[in-house]
Amino acid sequence: MPRKAPAIKIEATKALGAEVVFVGPSSAERQTKAEELAAQHGYVMIPPFNDEKIIAGQGTAGLEIIEDLPDVDLVLVPVGGGGLVSGVATAVKLLRPQAKVVGVEPELAADAQASLRAGKIVAWPGEKVDRTLADGLRTQHIGELNFEHICRYVDDIITVTEDEIREAMRRIALGAHLVAEPSGAVTSAAFFFHSQELPPAEKTVAIISGGSVEARLLAVVLEGDWLEATIASD
Amino acid sequence: MPRKAPAIKIEATKALGAEVVFVGPSSAERQTKAEELAAQHGYVMIPPFNDEKIIAGQGTAGLEIIEDLPDVDLVLVPVGGGGLVSGVATAVKLLRPQAKVVGVEPELAADAQASLRAGKIVAWPGEKVDRTLADGLRTQHIGELNFEHICRYVDDIITVTEDEIREAMRRIALGAHLVAEPSGAVTSAAFFFHSQELPPAEKTVAIISGGSVEARLLAVVLEGDWLEATIASD
Repeated sequence: MPRKAPAIKIEATKALGAEVVFVGPSSAERQTKAEELAAQHGYVMIPPFNDEKIIAGQGTAGLEIIEDLPDVDLVLVPVGGGGLVSGVATAVKLLRPQAKVVGVEPELAADAQASLRAGKIVAWPGEKVDRTLADGLRTQHIGELNFEHICRYVDDIITVTEDEIREAMRRIALGAHLVAEPSGAVTSAAFFFHSQELPPAEKTVAIISGGSVEARLLAVVLEGDWLEATIASD
Repeated sequence: MPRKAPAIKIEATKALGAEVVFVGPSSAERQTKAEELAAQHGYVMIPPFNDEKIIAGQGTAGLEIIEDLPDVDLVLVPVGGGGLVSGVATAVKLLRPQAKVVGVEPELAADAQASLRAGKIVAWPGEKVDRTLADGLRTQHIGELNFEHICRYVDDIITVTEDEIREAMRRIALGAHLVAEPSGAVTSAAFFFHSQELPPAEKTVAIISGGSVEARLLAVVLEGDWLEATIASD
């Protein structure tokens, strides 16, 4: 795990019986270390996103969306390494081609947007992406398989600010009574604050892909003391 | 509404287009005022709990529990006026007689437990019940219809402390990623801290009957600064 992973995720991993090894800061170093350990101990590697089976598994979220809301117009998906958006976009587009799928990234980790715009995979430095609160989306670059899926099935990738992520977490907690971690709240942030950049839609689904948030961070977000600055002018 | 109702509930009511009239502190005063307004303007009264249709409506939660978990052993239900527990207990017991249904109250508003023990409806003074954080359970006494249902279908009523309610809210947020208001968290508090008073059960359902909580209260609860005292010794 990255040393900067939230304590709540490190503790939850240990509670499941795992031995946690800190490697980093770069994800390439973690990849190498994991391969080393797998070879050494005969472990099975579970790649985080650049893998057909992982993409297919993530795609079941898309199947569920179409099952629950067959006339969905727009699906918003958090983008880190690109596994979830690859699977969801593929499932949604194959079942309902007229629906739009838009990926959402933190402004501080917008490597997937940069890749989509450049037409090739663009990497961002670890020091840069590590600044976002959205620890699940700090990936430095998307995978090759994910890039292919995104180019083919994702309509656009847009970005949200850190304050927008905090305010979305607050609204999700107080309005929907759900606890979203920062990475999970980016899609609601896009819905609340970037509607003009989104395709027109009657029915929108925002995937909230995680709720593992530190108690203190959620408390600070709920207090809303940081609010005045950015959001008020929105 | 009671003047001490949480601002978030008052605001949500206004947002739905209602004119809010504050009456109290006693619920009898609110009842009289509501009847007065209904007679004056031709409004339809919706009684909060002492009513067959309300009880039947609340009972649909019991139907859903049995549908989702046919082999449930124990259902924990928050008790205020007794409407929810009347409906849920009736539905559960008629469909699965061997399941146990236990009501849960704050120690500071334990009038239903007192009533069950005394074999008649016991009222608690408003100044007393108003001290609990669980604003939805500040009812001074249960209704007659509810008392009949409780005597017939509810196995027991147990109580939880204010600190146990806070800690349950915290665990529900961080573990289940749900926002529970204090009144909704009493059943999880009973599960966490009073298992020795509950019937033995493999499969327990705790009804979380509300998530309208003030941001500041939820933040304080998450920070857990109040924790050391009572819970640590538990």
